[in-house]
Amino acid sequence: MGDKMNYPNGIKKKQEEKIITYKNRGMTLENDLNITNQYYIDNDIAYIYKKPTPIKVVKAEYNNKGYRVIKEAYYSEPSTTDYNGIYKGSYIDYEAKETKNKTYFPISNIHKHQILHLRHVEKEKGICFLIIRFTTLDRTFLLKASSFLDYLDTNKKSTLPLKFIEENGYLIKNKLLKRVDYLEIVDKIWRLS
Amino acid sequence: MGDKMNYPNGIKKKQEEKIITYKNRGMTLENDLNITNQYYIDNDIAYIYKKPTPIKVVKAEYNNKGYRVIKEAYYSEPSTTDYNGIYKGSYIDYEAKETKNKTYFPISNIHKHQILHLRHVEKEKGICFLIIRFTTLDRTFLLKASSFLDYLDTNKKSTLPLKFIEENGYLIKNKLLKRVDYLEIVDKIWRLS
Repeated sequence: MGDKMNYPNGIKKKQEEKIITYKNRGMTLENDLNITNQYYIDNDIAYIYKKPTPIKVVKAEYNNKGYRVIKEAYYSEPSTTDYNGIYKGSYIDYEAKETKNKTYFPISNIHKHQILHLRHVEKEKGICFLIIRFTTLDRTFLLKASSFLDYLDTNKKSTLPLKFIEENGYLIKNKLLKRVDYLEIVDKIWRLS
Repeated sequence: MGDKMNYPNGIKKKQEEKIITYKNRGMTLENDLNITNQYYIDNDIAYIYKKPTPIKVVKAEYNNKGYRVIKEAYYSEPSTTDYNGIYKGSYIDYEAKETKNKTYFPISNIHKHQILHLRHVEKEKGICFLIIRFTTLDRTFLLKASSFLDYLDTNKKSTLPLKFIEENGYLIKNKLLKRVDYLEIVDKIWRLS
């Protein structure tokens, strides 16, 4: 993993601080996060990775080449978030979601077991948050899990208004190499040294 | 998760320290770890969970009930370990393996990408280890990832001798509720307070 991307010296530093001002050109949040996380690994900043998608296998058999082929399986509801890892010695964990809505994020996008997962991580004092991208607005926010859980516990609503996210979350700048440089915000909020 | 297992008060404490002396009765290490990790969650000791098995989906279609059914998929080589989570604020990560061999553990059981994963976690100062069970001997060991990686880097062998594991690893006691109480050993080695 660590040796897949190589940036020539010199170019790296100059590009690093450049903020992308043009519209997100069809890049998905997942893709942007993969690039960002690879940048964090390559530059020894953090080790954060995506978990496999949970799949329930019903039928599997060996084919004539001796490989095990899954013939029937279903996507199962995720019981954890998509991403986790280590940053400055701390456990870090987040879920990343996109929405085309312009004024709110539908809470149903975060599954019940994922909410329980967030509560567990909060309880054990991990660094835990959501990354929410409003694709049509081209704005990506970091919202602390604690803020999200507080909202859930005090509002019995099915949507999280953009206004709430603007007031309680943090806008993540789009950069060239660190596409979604969320660790810059983690540093500010959790005051990691 | 946290509300699935309920132990009547009183019984819990008495059973907790009881060490199982009879042979492991057909229980897999995975099952024992599930029970142990659930115990850790239920008792607010740690939050450690198993990641989904990585599967590469080739063909998926909607059935007549509107569910997405995977019709062709393959198990892919894991790029991370099976388990991770938080313990006393620290990132914790391990791979668990069983072997029927009596004198060695075959290193091929740990995939190349998993070894890279262990190196990343070590570098970022996570708590990282292997849990290896010799099923025929009914002995389960914790071996620090650093010891394992040192062995790999200095010995170009395909097997990890039981003798090496005995000398460099830690025997995990079989207990009734905390089937594989590895955190007891983590406390000793990493001196977490």
